[in-house]
Amino acid sequence: MAEPRLPLARIVSPLSVAVIGASDDVGKFGGRVIHYLIKHGYSGRLLPINPNRASIRGLPAFPGIGAAGPVPGGIDVAILAVPVAHLLRQVEDCAAAGVGACIIITGKLADAGPEGAALEAQILAVARAAGMRLVGPNCLGIFNMTDRAMLSSSLVLEAEQVKAGGIGMVSQSGALMGTLVSIGLHHGAGFSRCISVGNQADLELCDVLDFLIEDAATRVIALYIEGLKDPARFAPLLRRARAAGKPVLCVKAGRSAAGAQAARSHTASLAGSYAAFAALCRAEGAVLCEDPAIMVQAADALDRLPRLPGPGLGLAVIASSGGSTVTTADMLPAAGLRLAEMSEATRAELRRWMPESHVHLPLDTGSFDDGTSEEGLAACVRAFLKDPDIGAVAVPMTTQPAMAARAALFPGLCREGGRPILFVMTAAEVGNGARDALREADFPFFDRVSDALGVLRALEAEAEGRNRAALPPPARPAGIGRPPPLPEGALTEAEAKALAAAYGIPVTRGVLARSAEEAVLAAEAIGYPVVLKGVSRAVVHKSDLGLVKLNLADAKALRAAYAALPDLPLDGVLVQEMARGEAELILGARWEPGFGPMVLVGAGGVLVELLRDVQLMPAPLRPADAEAMLRRLAVWPVLEGVRGRPALDVAAAVEALTRLSWLAADLGPRLVEMDLNPLLLRARGQGAVAVDARATIGGEQP
Amino acid sequence: MAEPRLPLARIVSPLSVAVIGASDDVGKFGGRVIHYLIKHGYSGRLLPINPNRASIRGLPAFPGIGAAGPVPGGIDVAILAVPVAHLLRQVEDCAAAGVGACIIITGKLADAGPEGAALEAQILAVARAAGMRLVGPNCLGIFNMTDRAMLSSSLVLEAEQVKAGGIGMVSQSGALMGTLVSIGLHHGAGFSRCISVGNQADLELCDVLDFLIEDAATRVIALYIEGLKDPARFAPLLRRARAAGKPVLCVKAGRSAAGAQAARSHTASLAGSYAAFAALCRAEGAVLCEDPAIMVQAADALDRLPRLPGPGLGLAVIASSGGSTVTTADMLPAAGLRLAEMSEATRAELRRWMPESHVHLPLDTGSFDDGTSEEGLAACVRAFLKDPDIGAVAVPMTTQPAMAARAALFPGLCREGGRPILFVMTAAEVGNGARDALREADFPFFDRVSDALGVLRALEAEAEGRNRAALPPPARPAGIGRPPPLPEGALTEAEAKALAAAYGIPVTRGVLARSAEEAVLAAEAIGYPVVLKGVSRAVVHKSDLGLVKLNLADAKALRAAYAALPDLPLDGVLVQEMARGEAELILGARWEPGFGPMVLVGAGGVLVELLRDVQLMPAPLRPADAEAMLRRLAVWPVLEGVRGRPALDVAAAVEALTRLSWLAADLGPRLVEMDLNPLLLRARGQGAVAVDARATIGGEQP
Repeated sequence: MAEPRLPLARIVSPLSVAVIGASDDVGKFGGRVIHYLIKHGYSGRLLPINPNRASIRGLPAFPGIGAAGPVPGGIDVAILAVPVAHLLRQVEDCAAAGVGACIIITGKLADAGPEGAALEAQILAVARAAGMRLVGPNCLGIFNMTDRAMLSSSLVLEAEQVKAGGIGMVSQSGALMGTLVSIGLHHGAGFSRCISVGNQADLELCDVLDFLIEDAATRVIALYIEGLKDPARFAPLLRRARAAGKPVLCVKAGRSAAGAQAARSHTASLAGSYAAFAALCRAEGAVLCEDPAIMVQAADALDRLPRLPGPGLGLAVIASSGGSTVTTADMLPAAGLRLAEMSEATRAELRRWMPESHVHLPLDTGSFDDGTSEEGLAACVRAFLKDPDIGAVAVPMTTQPAMAARAALFPGLCREGGRPILFVMTAAEVGNGARDALREADFPFFDRVSDALGVLRALEAEAEGRNRAALPPPARPAGIGRPPPLPEGALTEAEAKALAAAYGIPVTRGVLARSAEEAVLAAEAIGYPVVLKGVSRAVVHKSDLGLVKLNLADAKALRAAYAALPDLPLDGVLVQEMARGEAELILGARWEPGFGPMVLVGAGGVLVELLRDVQLMPAPLRPADAEAMLRRLAVWPVLEGVRGRPALDVAAAVEALTRLSWLAADLGPRLVEMDLNPLLLRARGQGAVAVDARATIGGEQP
Repeated sequence: MAEPRLPLARIVSPLSVAVIGASDDVGKFGGRVIHYLIKHGYSGRLLPINPNRASIRGLPAFPGIGAAGPVPGGIDVAILAVPVAHLLRQVEDCAAAGVGACIIITGKLADAGPEGAALEAQILAVARAAGMRLVGPNCLGIFNMTDRAMLSSSLVLEAEQVKAGGIGMVSQSGALMGTLVSIGLHHGAGFSRCISVGNQADLELCDVLDFLIEDAATRVIALYIEGLKDPARFAPLLRRARAAGKPVLCVKAGRSAAGAQAARSHTASLAGSYAAFAALCRAEGAVLCEDPAIMVQAADALDRLPRLPGPGLGLAVIASSGGSTVTTADMLPAAGLRLAEMSEATRAELRRWMPESHVHLPLDTGSFDDGTSEEGLAACVRAFLKDPDIGAVAVPMTTQPAMAARAALFPGLCREGGRPILFVMTAAEVGNGARDALREADFPFFDRVSDALGVLRALEAEAEGRNRAALPPPARPAGIGRPPPLPEGALTEAEAKALAAAYGIPVTRGVLARSAEEAVLAAEAIGYPVVLKGVSRAVVHKSDLGLVKLNLADAKALRAAYAALPDLPLDGVLVQEMARGEAELILGARWEPGFGPMVLVGAGGVLVELLRDVQLMPAPLRPADAEAMLRRLAVWPVLEGVRGRPALDVAAAVEALTRLSWLAADLGPRLVEMDLNPLLLRARGQGAVAVDARATIGGEQP
């Protein structure tokens, strides 16, 4: 295996490009590749390869890459869009000719089944042996807008111009990448480099992410991910991107499949790999989007608009239509957003322009004393952008006179105010004048209120990530030793509780007994009422088998319960204090292959099944992270003390969750999974206690 | 007050139109009105009114409407876009000239405050006295695409053409209406009549809805509603529209404000007027949308696509990009949609075109044996449209070769299959060829996957409404008498329970006592354990005041509890059986002014606060309606029996809710509100029982 000759930066900006299968016919892949290279101003050396033509697009053509003759510095890149049957030979020829990298558009390799996968492996072996890099196969190549090198057959290159700008993109789907570039161009967004990695035979998404983090032309990074080849590379790259001040946005395929994964325990069923990926993104400040069309618009907003001053602020909505402002306000709660609360200073400014009765958000400038004067509009927006509760301003413009002139006000106001203004041209073609004015001013716009709100959610996630990055790293809580020696396989409840207790997590007191009499002695030591549990390493859900007898008030009840245990081969019985609490949580920990240790917290009891009200984060946690997880739960109001209920001991839950996260971090891949379910939470100051615990320990292999 | 001279149909299609303040300057309102009338081919008589011009746009102008001379048949419509200071005089002149209707674009009337409201009342009085109708004020007039009469100054009329079609629209926001027409035109939608009603001084939204139901040119109706002048007119109109086979879609402003309404009881706090409106729409089969841009696209889909065969079916997703099909599938759950389960026949057809390993939904035609051949694509779509579980097909097309030709396949396939195909051109400008091809074929398309999914939700609501309309009307359950005589004001618990019991709703047994000894006697008759409740007409939330003592096991405990009641002026104590159940529901009923009797069911206990997991419907209900409400609750899986829990007595809950709905229907406006909270639900076959009840009875006035 030879060292690769070319760095990725040079593959993206090649000094010379050979197009295998070049053609004058733009109906063919190779025809489009050379057409787009020329059309978009490629300035390096271009070598059309075609055995049947002497010249193509006015350039001398060569019958094969080997015939291209000595090229000064060698041939940097060959683009192959050839039938799959010819692919291996062509790649061999490229390797023989000393080509630096092949961009393989040809598909039906590993994506088509085992036969294709075998061919892909052969091609990779040829490339590796020659120190030649591969992009693809089954990709759509590279758009390098910064250097005007369009190494692709994508139809998006039919656009008159592909604007250079700060968005770098990596995609495992070439067609989707082309589409996102098209959407971006419509909105006036600019791109640095867009790289379709296809089957990732050689160069993979993380390689390109690494490159974009270092790339001076790239200010924001957008990723479309189907599956990471080496997930362990991802988090460190996200940290480097953050250190470089470059927001990373991503869409990850497989969100809907996560819920369908069968799993034998709660934790596993709630923490599939999409959930782990989402948790990782949150922890590392990457912005995970659901809709690719929102991702590219959010990337543009992060490239061309000021960032939010911080997370959690409100939105001001202003436009000349009561209908559009009210419906925009109505859409905020479902989008996870809220209207701002205006300061008195802002209200005073607004009062200068309209009757007191109309001074409220959303603001309808139709109520201005003298119509929607530009002066009043600008004054109100300026006041908004100084208001401490206003993070951003949304302007859902409808059909109205002077749309373009009115739209043209906002770029300057936004620059001046230093906070995002989300301008929405809600009308279609009749609003194109306003769109043109904003493209001219290099200012983003939206076509849909729903797009603007989706983007604002993404900006909010970016601001949250920025805040989190400013926190000190997690610190080991006091009084934690090292994990005790643990048997492999499923732990008994007593073993799992001992493990939790070793990390300072409160668990119910219990004694293992082998007979009814031993159980009675144990109960007397613990104090009635007690719980009796049949213990078996073979049983996961004790309650379902009738192995749990609650609230036994005296020795008579205990003996009766003992006698009523089902006839199963038990390892003994556990006699435990009967704990009570005001609410149940489930705490979980697991090793997520590729992502590392994760902890989970959720509403316990039937709610865990019903609402899937769970939060997942990589371990270890800061106490602030643990509290933030609890605050994101739907049951948070119960923990805080909703209407007449007592506030619960949130601090105890934070402590238990933080300590469990260190347990998960310490055990690493040995902790297959662990549940504390339920953790009973008592009123504030009265602590929490884990009533049941399960854990499975794996071997030492990571 | 004189009879109106003109029916609405003639106002919408006037034989003659006077434009007050007509001008050659399209920068002015009156200039645009006459410009748009001429530009879009108005064929009636046009009378420009302007004291300073002899002719306008080549037509003779008149100094005032009175000077327009005798017009055969009189002047049907005058359009006024004049300064508010001149408005009254102009309206008086119109009245004097025998004008049939004034369309008043001028704003700052009732919308601006009390002064404007007084002027609006004066103008209305002038019109009424003359039998002259008013549209507006503060409106943007009327677009009559069917007859090419554009009676409006809206900038959307800058569009080259405004296509005639089946969508009729009424809007309380003129600017939003213009925007929605613009969005519709972009997508190739056609409109019949669009009417902006503004402040609704005279003609109001329900008048126009009535007209559109009768209007032969209108096939689908879209409404933007800020507030109904007379809500009682709305439901009967929705029923007429349904009988006429015309789907009604609406957006109602004020959704986000509903949650902020303060209210003194659970039911009131959960059933604000937006909720009542939404319940009414559901009951009457109207489609309530959140986003106006979705509403207009859904109206278009209902106008130009086949309807869904029925509700609850799955979606097939097919396109040539794995990236776009997978991300579309991932977006379904959040949109409340699901992928279909293909039949064996469908799978067999797919196997003809691709390897077995790729035969699944979403379907990536990139896996076709011979590329994305049109033949294979068409065969798969044909198979989908015959599959019993596939209600619709979504095609999220990305940038690819031959986009226009590929897009052009779908109109024919859709016609042939008789089910909706939602074609999404996910790319922007580079996809315009495909858009043009579909406009040419008079077939709808979408620009965003999220739009198509939002529209599909609306189509689903339409299909649900169609199903519901086929049910027989609600029938009075057996064994219900008439409501007993009731005192006005808050009922005691005992009175409220007696009322419920009179409708056959099971309530806990209880006896009113005046002393500890009476209470003990009562408890012996009922049987221990019992509940003791302090009774006071002044107290709404007994638990909050310590007036409820649960689970009293014997006379000693009962006496102690009696002694521990807080020192409040009580009307006595209630001794009740201690009921137990597996789950708590809240049932409620109320009179919703304008909308009539409503019933509510929700998750009880803390969940009612936490999740606002409630369903509201107009009373009375069919048992099937009551069951459907329960099925829409988040807690439904608990009622069905989630993981190891028993299935609960859903039939008993259905019965109680249905009977409560008849109680609400019988009492009508006298029932201010009533709560049964909690209704304890036991295991299947063991019934349900209301443990507490509250009700407030009003006077006889509606």
